[in-house]
Amino acid sequence: MSLLVTGTVAFDSVETPYDKRDDAIGGSAAFFAMSARFFNHVRLVGVVGKDFPEKQLADFRHVGIDTEGVEIADGKSFRWAGRYEADWNTRHTLDTQLNVLETFDPKVPEQYRDSKYVFLANTAPAIQMKALEQVTAREFVVADTMNLWIDIAKDDLHALLKRIDGLVLNDEEARMLTGETHLLTAAHKVLELGPKFCVLKKGEHGAFLVSDGARFALPAYPVDRVVDPTGAGDSFAGGFMGYLAAVQNTHPATLRRAMLYGTVTASFCVESFSFDSLAKAGRSDIEARFNELHELITL
Amino acid sequence: MSLLVTGTVAFDSVETPYDKRDDAIGGSAAFFAMSARFFNHVRLVGVVGKDFPEKQLADFRHVGIDTEGVEIADGKSFRWAGRYEADWNTRHTLDTQLNVLETFDPKVPEQYRDSKYVFLANTAPAIQMKALEQVTAREFVVADTMNLWIDIAKDDLHALLKRIDGLVLNDEEARMLTGETHLLTAAHKVLELGPKFCVLKKGEHGAFLVSDGARFALPAYPVDRVVDPTGAGDSFAGGFMGYLAAVQNTHPATLRRAMLYGTVTASFCVESFSFDSLAKAGRSDIEARFNELHELITL
Repeated sequence: MSLLVTGTVAFDSVETPYDKRDDAIGGSAAFFAMSARFFNHVRLVGVVGKDFPEKQLADFRHVGIDTEGVEIADGKSFRWAGRYEADWNTRHTLDTQLNVLETFDPKVPEQYRDSKYVFLANTAPAIQMKALEQVTAREFVVADTMNLWIDIAKDDLHALLKRIDGLVLNDEEARMLTGETHLLTAAHKVLELGPKFCVLKKGEHGAFLVSDGARFALPAYPVDRVVDPTGAGDSFAGGFMGYLAAVQNTHPATLRRAMLYGTVTASFCVESFSFDSLAKAGRSDIEARFNELHELITL
Repeated sequence: MSLLVTGTVAFDSVETPYDKRDDAIGGSAAFFAMSARFFNHVRLVGVVGKDFPEKQLADFRHVGIDTEGVEIADGKSFRWAGRYEADWNTRHTLDTQLNVLETFDPKVPEQYRDSKYVFLANTAPAIQMKALEQVTAREFVVADTMNLWIDIAKDDLHALLKRIDGLVLNDEEARMLTGETHLLTAAHKVLELGPKFCVLKKGEHGAFLVSDGARFALPAYPVDRVVDPTGAGDSFAGGFMGYLAAVQNTHPATLRRAMLYGTVTASFCVESFSFDSLAKAGRSDIEARFNELHELITL
């Protein structure tokens, strides 16, 4: 089934207590696409600058990511630089250069408009909404967001929440969005804002799926070594949505399986800078970790 | 099957950001026993002072906890006072008065020595060892410990580790005991020290069971409101061991079910000061939460 993602494609410079990498390819839509592509063809809508390597776009196409929707604009690509503390949960943004993102007006190519599954990766809610409205055949829409938008674009975000089926967000964002410190209460308050379900990401502590009728809790896949957590949430969303699009249904039991696939793609993401580890993995690696994770949680 | 616990029986004074309680009944063995008693008769070995209410000992007996092994010594009972931060994970010890514990020499009553299941709740490893050696019929021994003993009684602790089947400890203790920051690697290093399995408690983030052949990850039961986390680890151990003693086997699949029961008894523990909430609960409440937790983790 057709799957479309819109969000950022960027250069990330990341420092960790153990290592660093400058100008790695990143961005919310890029991590999403590199994870969803194990399951389903992905249509990518975003913007890069003239400095973005054509080879990377070719690499995307090579693994099943359609880049027709990636606009190459005059100027430089979006850049983000950050540093992680040893606990991996504390992240300091060192630099943000919006560049071509500043004037980005998402244009969904004509041939993408029949997409049924849509993921609005993290970017300004107004941009997410603009992209969403162009996908006229949409049937199942999930969005991500971040504390910045909860802070400076709350009205846009609330308008968006009324138009989506699911929201993925981390624990801190859930608390910030709802003003509720108790995590599951916060999740239920998110549902009152519009979405039919939400996924609470808790990093190394796993994720929660909360909908009106059901809750599902899942630990993270226990990786041997974290190298760089950047993009883990987007990779989670990619595995989650990629699987749903591939099996073409969103029943509660399917959402639970999708949580496992999202957890698996996120586990590959954190094992390297950028999406190096995701790029090397094959579908059989995904299935092997799925089975291992399933075994880990089964009574 | 006969189940014996040795550890502390104490008065706790606890402050949280929301409330406080002075001189509540607590202690590692008391929380354990109040949780294990849902499943199996419990034999309690410990010491209290003359200030300990006889009514409480009668209450213990009333719910199936044998207090024949509780020595009433001259002097005052062990007292602990602490304060929790709003994240519940940061705990400050404000006061510790060993009192009768200072000269405690555990005496396991003759009629307790045929106990097959033994839990050595948190107390000095030398005391745990002394108690252990008296339980001549022991078949399955699990111990708890704390950072203090890892720090000041490492040799005693290492000697004990060679004599037990399982160790329950929290993530920080596992890292401290093994010098390994990666949690699952730390768990496997614990196994090299003697135990056949260990349970890593992560508080609100659940628990991990690690043995040579298998790993099992379980989220915490999502309680509506935490009132006081004191005793949660001991209550976990109580549900865990109580269930094992009741079903009389320690197969891998049984250990996994026991993890759920431990998680359930811990969830009641944190909902009140002392073991108020555990004392009010009945076996049907335990089963209801077991089913809810099972549903929460089932694919």
